[in-house]
Amino acid sequence: MNILRRGRLSIEPDKDIMNFTSSMEADKRIFDADIEIDKAHVIMLREQGIINDHECSIILKGLEKVGKDGISVLDDSYEDVHIALEARLIEIVGEDTGGRMHSGRSRNDEVATCIRIALRQELIGLLEELNRLIKTFLNIAEKHTDTIMPGLTHTQHAQPTTLSHNLMAHANAIFRDIQRTKGAYERTNQNPLGSAAFASTGFPISRERTTELLGFDAVLENSMDAVSTRDFMIETISCYSNLMTNLSRLAEELIMWSTSEFNFIELDDRYSSTSSIMPQKKNPDIAELMRGKTGTVYGALVSVLTICKALPHSYNRDLQEATPHLWRATDTVRSAVRMADGMVRTMNVKKGSMRSAANIGFMTATELADTIVRATGIPFRTAHHIVGAIAKAGKTPSSIELDELSLKIIQERLSDRGLSEDAIKDALDPVENIGKRTIEGGPAPLEIKRQITSLRKKTERVENDIKQIQEKIISASRKLEDAYYQFLVTTIEKD
Amino acid sequence: MNILRRGRLSIEPDKDIMNFTSSMEADKRIFDADIEIDKAHVIMLREQGIINDHECSIILKGLEKVGKDGISVLDDSYEDVHIALEARLIEIVGEDTGGRMHSGRSRNDEVATCIRIALRQELIGLLEELNRLIKTFLNIAEKHTDTIMPGLTHTQHAQPTTLSHNLMAHANAIFRDIQRTKGAYERTNQNPLGSAAFASTGFPISRERTTELLGFDAVLENSMDAVSTRDFMIETISCYSNLMTNLSRLAEELIMWSTSEFNFIELDDRYSSTSSIMPQKKNPDIAELMRGKTGTVYGALVSVLTICKALPHSYNRDLQEATPHLWRATDTVRSAVRMADGMVRTMNVKKGSMRSAANIGFMTATELADTIVRATGIPFRTAHHIVGAIAKAGKTPSSIELDELSLKIIQERLSDRGLSEDAIKDALDPVENIGKRTIEGGPAPLEIKRQITSLRKKTERVENDIKQIQEKIISASRKLEDAYYQFLVTTIEKD
Amino acid sequence: MNILRRGRLSIEPDKDIMNFTSSMEADKRIFDADIEIDKAHVIMLREQGIINDHECSIILKGLEKVGKDGISVLDDSYEDVHIALEARLIEIVGEDTGGRMHSGRSRNDEVATCIRIALRQELIGLLEELNRLIKTFLNIAEKHTDTIMPGLTHTQHAQPTTLSHNLMAHANAIFRDIQRTKGAYERTNQNPLGSAAFASTGFPISRERTTELLGFDAVLENSMDAVSTRDFMIETISCYSNLMTNLSRLAEELIMWSTSEFNFIELDDRYSSTSSIMPQKKNPDIAELMRGKTGTVYGALVSVLTICKALPHSYNRDLQEATPHLWRATDTVRSAVRMADGMVRTMNVKKGSMRSAANIGFMTATELADTIVRATGIPFRTAHHIVGAIAKAGKTPSSIELDELSLKIIQERLSDRGLSEDAIKDALDPVENIGKRTIEGGPAPLEIKRQITSLRKKTERVENDIKQIQEKIISASRKLEDAYYQFLVTTIEKD
Amino acid sequence: MNILRRGRLSIEPDKDIMNFTSSMEADKRIFDADIEIDKAHVIMLREQGIINDHECSIILKGLEKVGKDGISVLDDSYEDVHIALEARLIEIVGEDTGGRMHSGRSRNDEVATCIRIALRQELIGLLEELNRLIKTFLNIAEKHTDTIMPGLTHTQHAQPTTLSHNLMAHANAIFRDIQRTKGAYERTNQNPLGSAAFASTGFPISRERTTELLGFDAVLENSMDAVSTRDFMIETISCYSNLMTNLSRLAEELIMWSTSEFNFIELDDRYSSTSSIMPQKKNPDIAELMRGKTGTVYGALVSVLTICKALPHSYNRDLQEATPHLWRATDTVRSAVRMADGMVRTMNVKKGSMRSAANIGFMTATELADTIVRATGIPFRTAHHIVGAIAKAGKTPSSIELDELSLKIIQERLSDRGLSEDAIKDALDPVENIGKRTIEGGPAPLEIKRQITSLRKKTERVENDIKQIQEKIISASRKLEDAYYQFLVTTIEKD
Repeated sequence: MNILRRGRLSIEPDKDIMNFTSSMEADKRIFDADIEIDKAHVIMLREQGIINDHECSIILKGLEKVGKDGISVLDDSYEDVHIALEARLIEIVGEDTGGRMHSGRSRNDEVATCIRIALRQELIGLLEELNRLIKTFLNIAEKHTDTIMPGLTHTQHAQPTTLSHNLMAHANAIFRDIQRTKGAYERTNQNPLGSAAFASTGFPISRERTTELLGFDAVLENSMDAVSTRDFMIETISCYSNLMTNLSRLAEELIMWSTSEFNFIELDDRYSSTSSIMPQKKNPDIAELMRGKTGTVYGALVSVLTICKALPHSYNRDLQEATPHLWRATDTVRSAVRMADGMVRTMNVKKGSMRSAANIGFMTATELADTIVRATGIPFRTAHHIVGAIAKAGKTPSSIELDELSLKIIQERLSDRGLSEDAIKDALDPVENIGKRTIEGGPAPLEIKRQITSLRKKTERVENDIKQIQEKIISASRKLEDAYYQFLVTTIEKD
Repeated sequence: MNILRRGRLSIEPDKDIMNFTSSMEADKRIFDADIEIDKAHVIMLREQGIINDHECSIILKGLEKVGKDGISVLDDSYEDVHIALEARLIEIVGEDTGGRMHSGRSRNDEVATCIRIALRQELIGLLEELNRLIKTFLNIAEKHTDTIMPGLTHTQHAQPTTLSHNLMAHANAIFRDIQRTKGAYERTNQNPLGSAAFASTGFPISRERTTELLGFDAVLENSMDAVSTRDFMIETISCYSNLMTNLSRLAEELIMWSTSEFNFIELDDRYSSTSSIMPQKKNPDIAELMRGKTGTVYGALVSVLTICKALPHSYNRDLQEATPHLWRATDTVRSAVRMADGMVRTMNVKKGSMRSAANIGFMTATELADTIVRATGIPFRTAHHIVGAIAKAGKTPSSIELDELSLKIIQERLSDRGLSEDAIKDALDPVENIGKRTIEGGPAPLEIKRQITSLRKKTERVENDIKQIQEKIISASRKLEDAYYQFLVTTIEKD
Repeated sequence: MNILRRGRLSIEPDKDIMNFTSSMEADKRIFDADIEIDKAHVIMLREQGIINDHECSIILKGLEKVGKDGISVLDDSYEDVHIALEARLIEIVGEDTGGRMHSGRSRNDEVATCIRIALRQELIGLLEELNRLIKTFLNIAEKHTDTIMPGLTHTQHAQPTTLSHNLMAHANAIFRDIQRTKGAYERTNQNPLGSAAFASTGFPISRERTTELLGFDAVLENSMDAVSTRDFMIETISCYSNLMTNLSRLAEELIMWSTSEFNFIELDDRYSSTSSIMPQKKNPDIAELMRGKTGTVYGALVSVLTICKALPHSYNRDLQEATPHLWRATDTVRSAVRMADGMVRTMNVKKGSMRSAANIGFMTATELADTIVRATGIPFRTAHHIVGAIAKAGKTPSSIELDELSLKIIQERLSDRGLSEDAIKDALDPVENIGKRTIEGGPAPLEIKRQITSLRKKTERVENDIKQIQEKIISASRKLEDAYYQFLVTTIEKD
Repeated sequence: MNILRRGRLSIEPDKDIMNFTSSMEADKRIFDADIEIDKAHVIMLREQGIINDHECSIILKGLEKVGKDGISVLDDSYEDVHIALEARLIEIVGEDTGGRMHSGRSRNDEVATCIRIALRQELIGLLEELNRLIKTFLNIAEKHTDTIMPGLTHTQHAQPTTLSHNLMAHANAIFRDIQRTKGAYERTNQNPLGSAAFASTGFPISRERTTELLGFDAVLENSMDAVSTRDFMIETISCYSNLMTNLSRLAEELIMWSTSEFNFIELDDRYSSTSSIMPQKKNPDIAELMRGKTGTVYGALVSVLTICKALPHSYNRDLQEATPHLWRATDTVRSAVRMADGMVRTMNVKKGSMRSAANIGFMTATELADTIVRATGIPFRTAHHIVGAIAKAGKTPSSIELDELSLKIIQERLSDRGLSEDAIKDALDPVENIGKRTIEGGPAPLEIKRQITSLRKKTERVENDIKQIQEKIISASRKLEDAYYQFLVTTIEKD
């Protein structure tokens, strides 16, 4: 009979109830972490004298086998992987030994530890993928510092800019996503193990030691808080939501640029689909799904927030319902980042099309107004008025006839106040226009190149940070293995 | 090669891209519906003279086989079930015949039709389960018209009531969920088939006929609207969210009532779990998960809303991302309703405990104030003041010493103004108290019995409505089968 | 001192706490409803003999004055309008009489009744505005049954259609919003009054009578349910969310069509803004805000859902926090509908631009494939393959050289199989193309005209329904006034 | 006429449209920031030689006046504070000078800068309030290291703990909220000014200088990103949502502990309300509203996320709709933190009540099982089984009769295996029980005192950090004033 329920409860739930309560499906994500935690816990139990060498050795070997056999062998009539795994161990090594593994802990701290270990791996993977995406932006941006295109506000032609400037906007946004993800990582990589059900335990366990063996950055101190907080999940999915917002904006641009009307890019065939009825169609499906999946991640955030709202301390079963949303959001986000990378890397840029579009919509009006200010000394707001009136009249001016504007403020030809035809010509040329915008963050080619170099350096620093994080975990994992093998050797010698 | 992509596109997407775009997992839900739609479409094509008898016969037989073999046989390298199913048909009967099935339609109308058919079945199932839940409330309420318990406001003891009154509150709420679900059903059971990609088709198809053969209530007219609206999903998940809110409130009460402190009920062992560390624990896990799953459904709603926001006409691939949220929410809601039913049906009510609690917290204060009003003629607000002051003083009054309240408004013993000790005693007795509340909707036993009878009649009417809905669908399904077999006979005779 | 707190509580909350708890700001919305409810309640109290004629007369006159003076005169140190209004009445007519008004009721049923009355007015207003919006779509659609434009799927040119077809897609979606809003209205217009705190009351009040005097459709029966359910709010904001999704899609199209690239429409100056720096800009700000406000409404829905989640019966103060979200969402939605109406009504359609765009992107490919099917008898899937290959090759074919496609399936000129040049020419002409799509819901001009006529009839029916709803309320209001004046006359005569 | 529209547009929008588009209401929050930005911008313009000394002097004096007169004087027919403020300046000093202020910038960068300045002040305030809340937890926790209470899992009695342990769980959660809020602060305090409409400007402005004068930590580099990102808002409201989740959990406990059934605490009268009908009621309204306001903040998050989704670069008017949600959420969160502080600080703890409750529910079962393990050497899982069976039998055991458990595994009295009656007695005593849980994070009084001291030190560090942040801003503000006055002196001397 069920090793958990046999004591306290009598009737078994039926299939429908089991399906409602079981977390076995989502627990696939934490099976490996669970084995690792079991090992660290057992080694610590022995070091602290809570179990003896022989028991430790048998349990460790049993765990090795359970791990190798995999989750599919477990009895899925148990409600979660933790108890199914323990039952399997007991099946292999007997209750007299296997029944000691759970000393000084509870599923409450165990599951929290599992999720944190599985999540930190995902976050590291995400950081790598985000950094790679930034590099892709940098590589493409580097090639397009002179690729002129219309810059939009309100989706209306506003001022000319370059594709490089636009791509760098995305790259900078993603860099902040990296910063936020690092914050989430820090608050994830904390060790709740040893909190037991919430009240810690009377067994003299060492939380420092499992923290070390499992590569955590610190003990998550208060045991009541440790088992019941899911703030690291909320923070993580919040980061995801911000990131997906950024990717959805990229997706929107890729879709818009792919229309017959814009015709600025052509996405690679791999990132396109066709129609079952309209044979000529080439559709930006990947970009559309990336945009759509934003909704999936927002929903996951709302789910986890709602689930955690107003739960009294400490552990409540509601929390189990939160975890699948985390994994679903994680998979969605990571694949979306890879898709963004692939689409941008392989897209075909139609420079000519962008360039022609930059002539439409009188986008140099701002520069013309600025030029009038500089040449004639009239205030900006007045120049804005003049050029606005020209725009309404639908004219593209070379010399400005003030009479036709019937504005009282200006009563003579501006040319008489110093506005030369050359200045106007310059103002109206998109290339000249962009070239002038050399201030920090602007689109002038030289300035953008500086920005690219500067951001590239930052990605190198991120790469280093990731490497250090990984090394810490690997080193902990090695310590765990060492403790394991050294211990096996000792006991074999003893035997 | 891929029968869709071979014409227009060259490179195939890699595995990662395929996983990102494929809807095959979610499409399991619509496989049966798809076969049914294919049959209806093909029969209509023949009736309209778009394909001939022979072609029709071969396709129908092929579809029969595809349906029997099941979705697992389909080539999962296709991006969705529709095209995989068509590819499989072509594999069986050859392109020359199988390639005619998709005449006059597109996956855009096909998928919308599939989802609507699969969803309407779920909605009918939900209606049945909701009606059953109400009946369970009625059955339990019937037994507890005299089971006195503290009624709470602000989770504070407020006025005495009965368990029956409380359960009927839930029953009434669920009845409105039924009404809303029926609205969602009506707007779901509309036929988009024939809209093709969005522009309908030049083939002389009959949308009336497929509407009839598939049991829809009407044609979903405008073809651009028909393929791109997902408002029926939003409406459905909105209904779910309202329903889950109601269930979460029930869950909260079941959990609260199960605490050592309240101790009003004990949930059945089937609906309980124990702890891996604390052997004495009996936990209301099912109720907690029911409460938690509310968050899952809210999240699904947010996902679908976000996905649909600001999509221009007509079909966009983003819509594919919406569907899995619908199914996840549907499964969650339906099982939650069944769990609610089971928990309420099997719970053990601790009448004595409820009754004792009804004496705590001076819950009859309102009736005392009302009695003072009736006996002495002083205004309610003044009586409220007097009784409030008594409550603050922590006294349970039998005769009221106005001096000790130091209130100017009342300067003599209320008893002098006609307040008898018997009246006070009556006012303070919970049973008397409840017995007086006979107005419509109140907790007096007779009135509650009236309410139970009245709501029971309504559930019978719902049962009838559901039966009629089902019969319409069954009759359509029979028409489809008849058309199919009659037609097979004809062609066999011809052969 | 505070007429509520003086009895039970001692210390007064400070300013910061008052701001946290007060609902006075949101209560402005329900002040008029509150006065109306007070009147109906008081008249009923007298009819039931709970107060006498004299008291009734004084209270009614007092209420008249309170109503005329308006909410600004009320003491805003009270936590809500109900108690502030009662305090004001007591100030005017004295506690001995004014203190009787609250007999047999509580703020719990009072506030629920107020919100329902205020909301039903908004819903009626919304229904009118939605119906007007549909008529605007119909009027503009009527003018553009021949205005050819590219129909999009995946924002890619798909098949030619007409502006009329596109606008009718919006009109049909809004019609379903009307249906849903009517459902929300029905469940809103139910009377919770008489439920008191949740346990109804021992006073022999008549809920039927206040239902009649306040124009409700029915008593909201169970008193515990009646004070604590906010499902009508959730349902209402769910309808709003669906509606805003529809409006956001319209907004997206208006914005996209206004770009230099699409250039299909120009919005009226009233619905446009310019830039503070770029003088040439004309921006579709109203459409952008309409799109943005979708997020505001979704958020309101999430707020109300989250607030109501897992609240045990009956009333909890959390509910107060829900109401402002309802009003904010209501105002947002109603104004958005009016803006949509204005924008569509005044926009300048650039027919020529739309027509030219319809030639781009080989949108007639589907018809070409269909034509091949009809002329040559080859299956649709094969024709789809052929035309897809042509599209990839970037050719616009007049006679099809199958050899160049190197497709084995077709080994001879299709012309030999009956494909005439005329047929091809016809297939490639957008006008011919649209003209063929005459099936129900399709874009062919005659069919669209039929759709317009049919939907126009439906709007007339809606108009009638609204009128009936309004008349019922007006008639109730008249009954209340009659009861009031007739009663005043009686008491004056008596005096 | 409107100084913006007069050039480009003709018709003025009507009142309804104005209300739809105006941000004047929300702009009250940024008026002061706007004046400060204007000053910094103007001083920089002069330093860079873009305007001359005289112009600078006149504009600065004008701004001084505009600032003193306040926002109420501005013409509210303008759509936002920026243009209304500029119009007012022009009214005061004339267009010839005032019209120069907007050189080299746009409202797009201006509004982003305003929001960031106003928000950083709120975030600093929030950090202070959060730190204060933690100190309140620490102060109360210090008094209750020996206050025994039942620790709950699944809202069921689980193991005994102390109030101190419970309060410290909240304190630790809030500390992580502080860490997250600091991250949000860092990404908020970046300078977008100088990005102009999105393309930066051809005027030789200095972004470094305005960064310095306005106390920003860095330039927000890419100008397209700088005007269009609202990720700092999303991050901020995400932090808020996590924080409100934590506060809602506290609220839930305060409400639950205040029930007649739990009766663990009594909230202060200031944080309570009474009923309009039930005179005895004392309700935890502040805690309920705190719990409810969680929904308000979640909704704000959803609103901002939805609004930002899929917006192409760069600025879109949708963004205006996001800002009011930020302010609403900010006010809600800050007041909720203050309420939490006040409630916890003033609540009356009923130690006796908590202590008695700790005897209910066989909460020492885990320790009994552990004791059996330690005394007899049988495995934990077996001991768990034994104690579970005892719990089901409803016995509180002193000596354990294994026969009655009819378990094969144990076949002799455990006492024969070394389990002494004293050990059992100890195990069953809550005080002994808690005293044993001395491991890091556990509830043992000494360990909790250590935790209190350690967290107190962290709050001191936070205090220091806040001080430094504030000093940086004050010092920038002083630089701005200095530049302003020094400059005024210079020009006066020159005059």
